[in-house]
Amino acid sequence: MQKISVAIVGWGNIGKACKRAISECSDMVLAGVVRRATSMAHCDDPELENIRIVSDITQLKGVDVALLCIPSREVPQRVKEYHALGICTVDGYDEHQRIAALRRELDISAKVKKVVSIISAGWDPGTDSLVRALMKVVSLTGHSTTTFGGEKGGRSMGHTAQVKSIAGVKDAVALTLANGRGKHKRRVYVELQEGADLEQIKQAILSDPYFKFDPTEIIPVESIHPYNTLHHSATIERTGMEVNQVYTVSGTNPEFTANIMVASARACMNAYNKEEFGTYTFIERPIIEYLPGNNIDEKLEGY
Amino acid sequence: MQKISVAIVGWGNIGKACKRAISECSDMVLAGVVRRATSMAHCDDPELENIRIVSDITQLKGVDVALLCIPSREVPQRVKEYHALGICTVDGYDEHQRIAALRRELDISAKVKKVVSIISAGWDPGTDSLVRALMKVVSLTGHSTTTFGGEKGGRSMGHTAQVKSIAGVKDAVALTLANGRGKHKRRVYVELQEGADLEQIKQAILSDPYFKFDPTEIIPVESIHPYNTLHHSATIERTGMEVNQVYTVSGTNPEFTANIMVASARACMNAYNKEEFGTYTFIERPIIEYLPGNNIDEKLEGY
Repeated sequence: MQKISVAIVGWGNIGKACKRAISECSDMVLAGVVRRATSMAHCDDPELENIRIVSDITQLKGVDVALLCIPSREVPQRVKEYHALGICTVDGYDEHQRIAALRRELDISAKVKKVVSIISAGWDPGTDSLVRALMKVVSLTGHSTTTFGGEKGGRSMGHTAQVKSIAGVKDAVALTLANGRGKHKRRVYVELQEGADLEQIKQAILSDPYFKFDPTEIIPVESIHPYNTLHHSATIERTGMEVNQVYTVSGTNPEFTANIMVASARACMNAYNKEEFGTYTFIERPIIEYLPGNNIDEKLEGY
Repeated sequence: MQKISVAIVGWGNIGKACKRAISECSDMVLAGVVRRATSMAHCDDPELENIRIVSDITQLKGVDVALLCIPSREVPQRVKEYHALGICTVDGYDEHQRIAALRRELDISAKVKKVVSIISAGWDPGTDSLVRALMKVVSLTGHSTTTFGGEKGGRSMGHTAQVKSIAGVKDAVALTLANGRGKHKRRVYVELQEGADLEQIKQAILSDPYFKFDPTEIIPVESIHPYNTLHHSATIERTGMEVNQVYTVSGTNPEFTANIMVASARACMNAYNKEEFGTYTFIERPIIEYLPGNNIDEKLEGY
């Protein structure tokens, strides 16, 4: 069986974790890593040894699926570019309220170019969305809440990436903390660049849709190092007349999200091979297509 | 939009709960209830008022999907009969080790007759199977256990139905209790018919594949009534290098299973309308197809 040729686009926490996840999958091969041209100059990361590194995906041959390990807001444009090149994509686009519209938009270019994309295929949105949908199947008239981070808080990747993208921010970590009954508060540690204006940065954070709906505390620190964490957790609860369901997951986020994105590359190719071209959310493809295995009996083991 | 016409086959706990679940679904209508001819005579159940009751499904017109609320071991034969009649089916077939083979067998008749069946679409197998598959997506190299009933135990429907089918048993309830690390023990309360031989019944229970792999205690009682329960619970845990996941569900079993079967009738019709004929397990159809809603945007609400 031909292996799925996967390109990693972006070499941050998720990109690196995707590399490790792909190495666990006997049905995949890493075609190479796509980085910004500006990052290519100082390319001394030992993890990149023996890996083809390019600044443009067209320099890699025979890529089946590109894993977009880039900031969420760069995803829509990049997917369109890759569709034009005839490349399937997987991303972790995380602005919940825009997902349905984005799916509709990207479905057109996917169908025209006969490729497959799975969008918002990470932890949340992604596997959490599947659990929420499943819980609805189990108790249609119930009530769901999702609580992130617990009392100690956990690192939100989307929020952290957003703060890091603000001019004047040298480094940052944005924590999500439970605030009761599915509500949250945010705590942001920021390390400023020399001469940066803290008030201006605070304003940029507080006015961003990632933060403006929740109580947010911003704490300037000398160094992010002691405050940094990769840990996060989520608890989804659904109560219904006759059924109570609780799903809790905790882990280090890049590994978690990377595993889901890599499994989604497999689901992408399953759809592609059936010529079911288009753009899908994580819950629109059968879960069995995300699992490794050579035949249905193998995939049904432990059913 | 035309409503899905659903027949309930069997009028036990699950059949009755399916009736209640269908009444919650604005996209479905109950075509009628199929019962054994021998049960038709004393049909004074007030829940059956205004419902068409027949002993043969051909007496009902325009049935899209039949929900097979019958003992697991009667399922394979019944599915084949209904395929021959061109009727789609949903069942909760629960002998895990035979599911892959049954799926293969029933896939042939479904494709020949251009119908859709979803087999083993209950709690476990069913939604638990989906959670196990999802957890594997999240941590491919982890270790999973499923624990039923907890310390107090819970009613296993498959085991209870099996004991009730033994000659000489008037009534029974079979509890599953946790026995550590995904292992279980069984406790069976049996109410005997007059003149029945307890030792013979014990032998029939202990030699059945439902019981013979686990420690089983059999307790004869005057009346099942004080020992009866509809409650059950399951906890699925997966530990991996970087991720821990726990899914716990507890509830009254007939409601739970009925909701899943009724949602599966919807998934059946979605597959049928796409002409994707065949027999599927619960995890082979996209979860979004189990959800009610008129369009994709509606189904993606809360994603």
